[in-house]
Formats: sequence, structure tokens, C-alpha cells
Amino acid sequence: VGLAARKRGRARRVIGVARTEHTLSVARERGCADDTTHDMAEAAGEADLVLVATPVGSVPAALERIAEHVRPSALVTDVASTKASICEAADRLLTGRADFVGGHPMAGDDQVGVANAREHLFEGCIWAVTPTAASSSEAVERLSEFAGCLGARVLELDPSAHDRLVAATSHLPHVVAAALVNAVWNVTDGHPSASALTASGFRDTTRVAGAPADLWDDIVLDNAQAILPALDAALAQLSALRGAVAARDESAIHAFLDQARERRSRLLTKESP
Amino acid sequence: VGLAARKRGRARRVIGVARTEHTLSVARERGCADDTTHDMAEAAGEADLVLVATPVGSVPAALERIAEHVRPSALVTDVASTKASICEAADRLLTGRADFVGGHPMAGDDQVGVANAREHLFEGCIWAVTPTAASSSEAVERLSEFAGCLGARVLELDPSAHDRLVAATSHLPHVVAAALVNAVWNVTDGHPSASALTASGFRDTTRVAGAPADLWDDIVLDNAQAILPALDAALAQLSALRGAVAARDESAIHAFLDQARERRSRLLTKESP
Repeated sequence: VGLAARKRGRARRVIGVARTEHTLSVARERGCADDTTHDMAEAAGEADLVLVATPVGSVPAALERIAEHVRPSALVTDVASTKASICEAADRLLTGRADFVGGHPMAGDDQVGVANAREHLFEGCIWAVTPTAASSSEAVERLSEFAGCLGARVLELDPSAHDRLVAATSHLPHVVAAALVNAVWNVTDGHPSASALTASGFRDTTRVAGAPADLWDDIVLDNAQAILPALDAALAQLSALRGAVAARDESAIHAFLDQARERRSRLLTKESP
Repeated sequence: VGLAARKRGRARRVIGVARTEHTLSVARERGCADDTTHDMAEAAGEADLVLVATPVGSVPAALERIAEHVRPSALVTDVASTKASICEAADRLLTGRADFVGGHPMAGDDQVGVANAREHLFEGCIWAVTPTAASSSEAVERLSEFAGCLGARVLELDPSAHDRLVAATSHLPHVVAAALVNAVWNVTDGHPSASALTASGFRDTTRVAGAPADLWDDIVLDNAQAILPALDAALAQLSALRGAVAARDESAIHAFLDQARERRSRLLTKESP
């Protein structure tokens, strides 16, 4: 975000905050920040826009840490993959101190970290913006304008609706990909030709499972309530297909695969939010 | 295959066979064949190498159709995704008439058909070659040389071992991707923001589910015996993960995801076959 905002002239000054000196020096070298510091509270006190980009589970602690230091005129936001628990924590910790509106840019890669920052990452992506009853319309407008300036398309959603939808569209693909890898591993059981026979189908289907587990166990844990019914739906579909295969029911197998092909194409047809 | 063989000067003359005139004219225009015909038997009678590239379920019928017409010196092969039932049919239909060795180039796309032919499709891919007791070593050598000439790396495997391995590495990803699409469809239930929230994770994880159902119900049916235990392994993994999520067991979730990340990287590390 720092890189994109600087390249587009959208930030007068970006202060990067991280724990390790290595991350900070990479951030400076890559042009992601003008200045860097380990002191989150101090940086927050100087900012018009505070953007928290820690893993999901650490966002509330970061908000708590900056609560007494943010300017009353500041807008605080985040980029985490779940929104309900974070927006609730923000309303509790920041109301009366600064505006908060949760955000979730739907962009990313299994190659993470500041070393992989890309200026154009947000172009054309959806940036979910999730106001609560405590959010002022002016704050929502400020965040939307910022996201739009980085090239993203803003989608306004209730935090809980966001979490239910991404449980299906984003978190479920992730955990299914991980389960698929583990299943393939068990079935092939170290056969010397298994690697040779993994073609692009396996590589693409499991790409997201290459992401660091640290980021994702946080997301899965925080959104467990919405992920469980999504997992149940996946189990139900796989069991239905298993039944059709066990019965050698060609028309049921065909209908299952053809429905998936058609539904996939409809799910990927983007309309303006 | 015709396009690749012609561009590499590996075929003096390619005769393309298909049912529709449209397919044949596209094949000629794209340079996939020198001549084309609807008459499979006649074309087979003129060929040194007969390559059957129909959907899995139609390969035995095609072999039956050409059996009386192939030259005794010809090598017959196929490119289907399953091998045991096809090699068995070939041994029954062709022994004493011509050499047969089954093949499976692990290359392809969800964009199928001669209109999507690509000259470089086979470069660097694995071409599984599956001799049986009836195959002469000279025939295996001829097919391996041909596949190598198109840029593929040959992997020799027993037909049943091939089918068990690709059930896991190729067929399982396909059916899991289809089940995932259907699950996401059911959970999001027509929500107007569902499409907007499908990012690259969903797109890549389900890419293979965009392929035509006709090709794949054939494969699933033919390889049902090997796909069922693979489906059971996937169901077991998903259930295990569901249990960890329901128990909010962070270390179990972490171990599951981290194991998948590590195993994926090992499965994708290709060694020379």
C-alpha cells in the first residue's frame, strides 16, 4: 500500500512500521516508505491515515497500542481478510478517539512480505470497505477515495456479510487446496513418479496452499464460524460426487461437472459493485 | 500433436481425422495436418504412426475400427488420461496386427480442441509411456523417441500404476475443483456481491473445473476404481480439518496448513524421470 500510494503521489509521506530492522530497510530500499520506525504509537501520532497490516489476530492489539496516540482527525483502517471481530474491536477501542473503517483489498499472492511489494497490485481489485453503525459517512468516503486512487474498486459490505461471503469465495478454496495437497501426498505415498505426474492442474489447484501457514491459521481461526458451514458444503459436494462415482452413474457425474463448469463461469463474471 | 510434429519436421505427412468438416478445416488452416479425412480406417492404413486422440471412452472403439486396416509395421498409440483399460483393449484388438504402446502427455489446458492447438505444448512436459507384456521394446523406443522429439520427457510406467498415480495427481484435483465450485455456489446462494469477492484464489483453485464435462466424465468413469480411494483421502483430510476448526485448535490448523505447504513444494519438485 505504501509503495502504491507513493508512486501515485497519494501520500505526502509514508511512515513504515515493522518489528525487524531488516523489514524496514527493505521497505525503504523498495520505495514502500519514506521513513521507518519500530515505534507504532509514535508513527500513528503523526499520521492522517493509519493502515494496520498485521496478521488478522494481531490487529486488535495494534489498535489498542495506537488508541491513545492517534490524532482525532485521523482515519484508521486495516487490510485483514476478516472484518467482524476487527470492526468490533475497533469500535470498542477507537470510538471517540478517531474514525475507523475496516477494509479488505482482495489482492495478494502466496509470495508475501515487503520484498514482494508491487506498485500495481491493487489495480482492478475489489477493496471491501465494511462500515459499522459507528462509522461516519465521511470516514467511509475517505477510505473509498483512497482505495479508488490505488486503482481498486470499492465494495461496501456489512462486516458479517463480508466474513460469510469470503469464507466461501476465499477461505474455503484455501483450506480445500491444503486438504487436496495432503490427500495427494497420502495417496501417492512417496512413489518416485508422483512428482513427475503433477502437472499444471495440481499446481494451479493448490497454488494458494503455498502461502505461509502463520497468516492463514489466524484467518481460519478468526472466521471459524463462517468457515464451518462452507466446509460442510464442500464435504457434502464431495460425498455426493463420491456416491455418483461409486455407482458409476455417468449422467450424475456429467451433471456434477457440467454444473461446476457453468457456475464457475458465472461466479467469475464480475459486475460493477 | 500434428502441429508440433509438423513444425519440428518429425512427420513427412500428417493426416488429420475428425467427424466434422469444421474441425478438419480448422486443422488444415492452423497447420495441424497436411491432409484431412473423415475416414479413420483409410487414414490408419496409410500411416507409420497412428495416434488416437479421442475422449477416453471412445479409444477402444477407434482401435477396433482401425484394427483390420493398420499396416503391420505401424506403431499405434493414444494420448488418453487413463491407460489400463485402453492398453487391455489394444492388446486384445491389435496383437498380431500392429505394435501398440499407450501414451499420456501430461499437457493440456481447459481450452481444448484443434482451434487451441499450440506448437510448444509438449515442451518440458511429462509423456507417460505405458508398455504391457505384449509391447516390444522396439515399439516403446519408437514412441519414446517421437515424444522426446516434441520436447517431452518420457516416463515409463505400468498402465495400472499410471492410473493409480494420476487418480491422485490429476483426476482428484479436477473433481475437488468441481466440488469446490458447487460448494461456493451453494454457500453464497446468489448473493449479489459473491462474484465481486471471487479473487485469484478461487479462479486458480478451480481453473481445471472450466474444462468440458464430456471429456472428464469419461475419465472419471474409466478410472473410478482408483479415484474412489483418492476421493476418500480428500474427504478424510477435509473432515480432519473440519474437526480442528470446530475445536478452534490453532496448533492443529497450523500443522495442517504448514504440512500442506511443505508437501506441495516437495510434490512440485521435479526430478528427471
